[in-house]
Amino acid sequence: RLKCGESSKESSRCSTPVLDADRTDRLRDKMKRRIESGDHWFSLEFFPPRTASGAVNLISRFDRMGSGGPLFIDVTWHPSGDPGSDKETSSMMIASTAVNYCGLESVLHLTCCNQTKEKITAHLNKAKRLGLKNIMALRGDPIGEDWVEEDGGFNYATDLVKHIRCEFDDYFDICVAGYPTGHPEAESYDNDLRHLKEKVDAGAHFIVTQLFFRAETFLRFVKDCRAIGITCPILPGIFPIQGYHSLRQLVKLSKLEVPEEIMQVIEPIKDNDAAIRSYGIQQAVEMCKVLLASGEVPGLHFYTLNREVATIEVLRQLGLWAEDPRRPLPWAVSAHPKRKVEDVRPIFWASRPKSYIYRTQDWDDFPNGRWGNSSSPAFGELTDYYLFYLKSKSPKEALLQMWGEELMNEGSVYEVFTNYITGQTNPSGHKVMCLPWNDDALAPETNLLKDELEKVNRRGILTINSQPNINGKPSSDPIVGWGPAGGYVFQKAYLEFFTSSENVTALLQVLKKYEPRVNYHIVNVQGKNITNAHEMQPNAVTWGIFPGREIIQPTVVDPVSFMYWKDEAFALWIEQWVKLYEDESPSRMIIQYIHDNYFLVNLVDNDFPLDSCLWQVIEDMFALLDSPRATQEEGSQS
Amino acid sequence: RLKCGESSKESSRCSTPVLDADRTDRLRDKMKRRIESGDHWFSLEFFPPRTASGAVNLISRFDRMGSGGPLFIDVTWHPSGDPGSDKETSSMMIASTAVNYCGLESVLHLTCCNQTKEKITAHLNKAKRLGLKNIMALRGDPIGEDWVEEDGGFNYATDLVKHIRCEFDDYFDICVAGYPTGHPEAESYDNDLRHLKEKVDAGAHFIVTQLFFRAETFLRFVKDCRAIGITCPILPGIFPIQGYHSLRQLVKLSKLEVPEEIMQVIEPIKDNDAAIRSYGIQQAVEMCKVLLASGEVPGLHFYTLNREVATIEVLRQLGLWAEDPRRPLPWAVSAHPKRKVEDVRPIFWASRPKSYIYRTQDWDDFPNGRWGNSSSPAFGELTDYYLFYLKSKSPKEALLQMWGEELMNEGSVYEVFTNYITGQTNPSGHKVMCLPWNDDALAPETNLLKDELEKVNRRGILTINSQPNINGKPSSDPIVGWGPAGGYVFQKAYLEFFTSSENVTALLQVLKKYEPRVNYHIVNVQGKNITNAHEMQPNAVTWGIFPGREIIQPTVVDPVSFMYWKDEAFALWIEQWVKLYEDESPSRMIIQYIHDNYFLVNLVDNDFPLDSCLWQVIEDMFALLDSPRATQEEGSQS
Repeated sequence: RLKCGESSKESSRCSTPVLDADRTDRLRDKMKRRIESGDHWFSLEFFPPRTASGAVNLISRFDRMGSGGPLFIDVTWHPSGDPGSDKETSSMMIASTAVNYCGLESVLHLTCCNQTKEKITAHLNKAKRLGLKNIMALRGDPIGEDWVEEDGGFNYATDLVKHIRCEFDDYFDICVAGYPTGHPEAESYDNDLRHLKEKVDAGAHFIVTQLFFRAETFLRFVKDCRAIGITCPILPGIFPIQGYHSLRQLVKLSKLEVPEEIMQVIEPIKDNDAAIRSYGIQQAVEMCKVLLASGEVPGLHFYTLNREVATIEVLRQLGLWAEDPRRPLPWAVSAHPKRKVEDVRPIFWASRPKSYIYRTQDWDDFPNGRWGNSSSPAFGELTDYYLFYLKSKSPKEALLQMWGEELMNEGSVYEVFTNYITGQTNPSGHKVMCLPWNDDALAPETNLLKDELEKVNRRGILTINSQPNINGKPSSDPIVGWGPAGGYVFQKAYLEFFTSSENVTALLQVLKKYEPRVNYHIVNVQGKNITNAHEMQPNAVTWGIFPGREIIQPTVVDPVSFMYWKDEAFALWIEQWVKLYEDESPSRMIIQYIHDNYFLVNLVDNDFPLDSCLWQVIEDMFALLDSPRATQEEGSQS
Repeated sequence: RLKCGESSKESSRCSTPVLDADRTDRLRDKMKRRIESGDHWFSLEFFPPRTASGAVNLISRFDRMGSGGPLFIDVTWHPSGDPGSDKETSSMMIASTAVNYCGLESVLHLTCCNQTKEKITAHLNKAKRLGLKNIMALRGDPIGEDWVEEDGGFNYATDLVKHIRCEFDDYFDICVAGYPTGHPEAESYDNDLRHLKEKVDAGAHFIVTQLFFRAETFLRFVKDCRAIGITCPILPGIFPIQGYHSLRQLVKLSKLEVPEEIMQVIEPIKDNDAAIRSYGIQQAVEMCKVLLASGEVPGLHFYTLNREVATIEVLRQLGLWAEDPRRPLPWAVSAHPKRKVEDVRPIFWASRPKSYIYRTQDWDDFPNGRWGNSSSPAFGELTDYYLFYLKSKSPKEALLQMWGEELMNEGSVYEVFTNYITGQTNPSGHKVMCLPWNDDALAPETNLLKDELEKVNRRGILTINSQPNINGKPSSDPIVGWGPAGGYVFQKAYLEFFTSSENVTALLQVLKKYEPRVNYHIVNVQGKNITNAHEMQPNAVTWGIFPGREIIQPTVVDPVSFMYWKDEAFALWIEQWVKLYEDESPSRMIIQYIHDNYFLVNLVDNDFPLDSCLWQVIEDMFALLDSPRATQEEGSQS
């Protein structure tokens, strides 16, 4: 029995109502559970990009492909590309981004050939520090022609597996490679199988195979593995043929033979990319169906070649792609083990979750259940915020097309915001697909408020964040639902915008009528802060009630972190918008003026069961501004 | 700025959304706030009882009079009654009970005359340890006729005030006594005023006066105090005349003179208690009205003589009695400073809150926001539970009249439970006013379920705790409301009962149909535990949403503490019921049989927006038991 005063770390009690066992379990446990339940999975393999913009694209792809529900993704190790470095294109950083920012269970490849133990240990320590928990242990290709075994060095993947287990005990889940037709350098197929058995015996938890073209190749391989006592999961590597040249190149590298029946189909259509891709999808689907039907295959591993169309299509046809992914929380959960209990965040970063994760990456504890002392107001410095994956995905010229080559006045800015909301093209014929505060199109939830948002943006209420009030919708609701089945979700209406100081003066007048129903925080770039909320008390604006659990309240309006968000929100005017224009240009001066003089306002309507009153607040503000007060005063004097 | 990892103790952030500043503020701050807002208060003085049963009665009176909203109560110090001891009747224990179990801000009197510094310090240390924060510092009456000042001893209350401030710095709020007509032993009125000024200058925070009979006496006294520079609050001591003899005795003790106009009214009716009390109420009301109207009186202090009728009537007529007290939480909050952040408790002790407080009094931390690792499953031993204020308020013979002098069978027990629910008299003509698990009449909230409860108790579902589902009622709702204004409260339907193992077998069959809507825990006295809930995950069954705050979830069904409650719930059959009967008597054997063989069941309907399905669950159970299964089986064979 526990004694009073034991710390949470030592306690066997849940300190959090973890919504999803998947968030905390190890990859091997997740596999075990899926195998027991007969629930087939898929996983996706990517290689690191060559360029920074390639990295930005790959990360967007992670987000999109992550929504389909892969059990894990893996990132290959490119020995020639400084794979363990801090470069934004390194294997290490790409895998870390997948875990931390995209919330994906990730496996980092690691090759040991020609490496010192110290170097390997350093890589593993770094991976651990970054939150990676799974390693694909490979020998890798020797450098140079005349490779010879080194005594005491890493000669085989088995040596790496042993090293990981020896140095890191049980910390990492380990994957090893299997070769359904034998490793090209192996003395024999049987010999190769024995090597695989050695790797597993050394401590590997599962096997992913090299690609192959016939289901029976894999099934015979599994049978042979089982015969010599390999019992761990064996996942077939699936390669949907996506083009003639990529196939040729891969075959050459992997020293595989493409079966005659496939070459006969492909050769005649080798210049027709669409036809080849279509064939590749069909061929992969048929093979996968045979594999899954065999009962020997718990999950499929896809070699994506960093492309998404073919793989997604194969998965769709197999019924493995999650068309309507359930969200465990209303925001994207990070997969870093340190953050596994995290279940509360300030609403301000709703459209910039990666920025929030980045700025809080050094926290030791994460808010859990309540936004309180467990959260630290020590947000990372804003000077770091231009880290590559926090930047806009769009190049400068696209931004200029969307946000205006030349701004005439503040009204031009109102138009940009309005066009973003409505999705209409601007006078130069371009759609505004993003804003500095929203790198993606409107969320489906925000779409519910589209008409009202359009109206107020047109008049200079420059909205950057909002949510409708929700009075108990099922947790399965396709737009606002999140969390486990059988629950109910709730929201208080929220609206956040930039607006002029004239508007703020009128707004403050109007808000008196809405006490205590509406809470507000109003702040300018200098930090002048006007609020009617408790200075330390957060306001829960999203919460959910679920069977057999405590209440989850995943988003709050927190007065302290709003001041950190404020710095970021104002800085985005400068970093993303002002910098598009020439020094001293009128466009630049207009944005700079807004940055210097506008206020950032957030409003919460606490009375969530009623229709939101926030639109009426704005209406009242405009009515007050429009009222002929001067005239009235003159009138009363006459 | 705070750094990551700082503990809650050092953090300036709220670790809890404390609902009510009154819960955490010091008495002097509460007074200050009430004075500033012009919100008059009252306080109540009691003396310690002579007997244990007197103590039980007084504590019930604390609960009743506490509901009217006194700012504080105070307990006098009886030097001859071992006032600092652990006896249930000591001043110390009565004041401690008021704080800890009745949640009342309490002032403990302390007299210093003929006491050593060590003794006084020991008393103060003990008071502090018990959660007392306020001391009324008095000289007390010297023992013996020929009292002389001791050098360096406690000769005056001023010495005690100085000692408290010297030894305990600012820890205690200190009250001192004022004498509107001068202390009987004082050389002169002016001299007495100077003594009072000394006491205040030594560190007292407010003054309570001796009783008086004319408003102008007090108002002149306040004026004189202000004139010599006494600025702290001065509270008039109000004594509603309640009887001829008590008046005479008090006057004799306090050496006060009763004004002629009062004696003239009272003497002729001195044998008519009702008439005197009625006059006393009228006289007190009129005097209080003058006092309050003067603008000099922020609050009234009542000498209750441990009676409630007259004082409550005066307060009602003055409009100071809180007719519909707002509950900060759905359970009675303890006033111990260590518990000030506590805002979650298991629902099991809903009818035995004092037992819960007692059994958790040694906890260092209290659950705050979430029932998790901050709560300790180390509940106090059950062997202590017979502590006097956890016992039934009723004497043995009353219990026998209610629960049956002689039980015939289990059905007799069902009848007792049913009569408790319906409020009907039993065959011997007595109403069942309490049960071992419920020392009071049905809560208004439980009354909402009366018809269903009656039906199921009649058939052997022996309910001991229940709540209806509530889907968002205003926090001001007179029956189920709690917490600050402008909020909404919610509940999941809950039902807890003892029932036979046959019923449990059928119930378990039926409950399969209600997965995952209904969570259950079913346990017998040996601890055999059947549940479909997570073994560590509490289920929030009462929660509230308030303007500008995080979610409050004050009651949970917690699997771990249910096992502690189970021991208490089963033990109450033995301690309170079995022990009423002779050894080996049939009545005793029936209760013992139930104790040994019945199960304790709790059910939660998670789907709070729908009508509770728990009654249907019970219906289905009875239907299954009634179904002619044996007949059907025979039929199918024929």
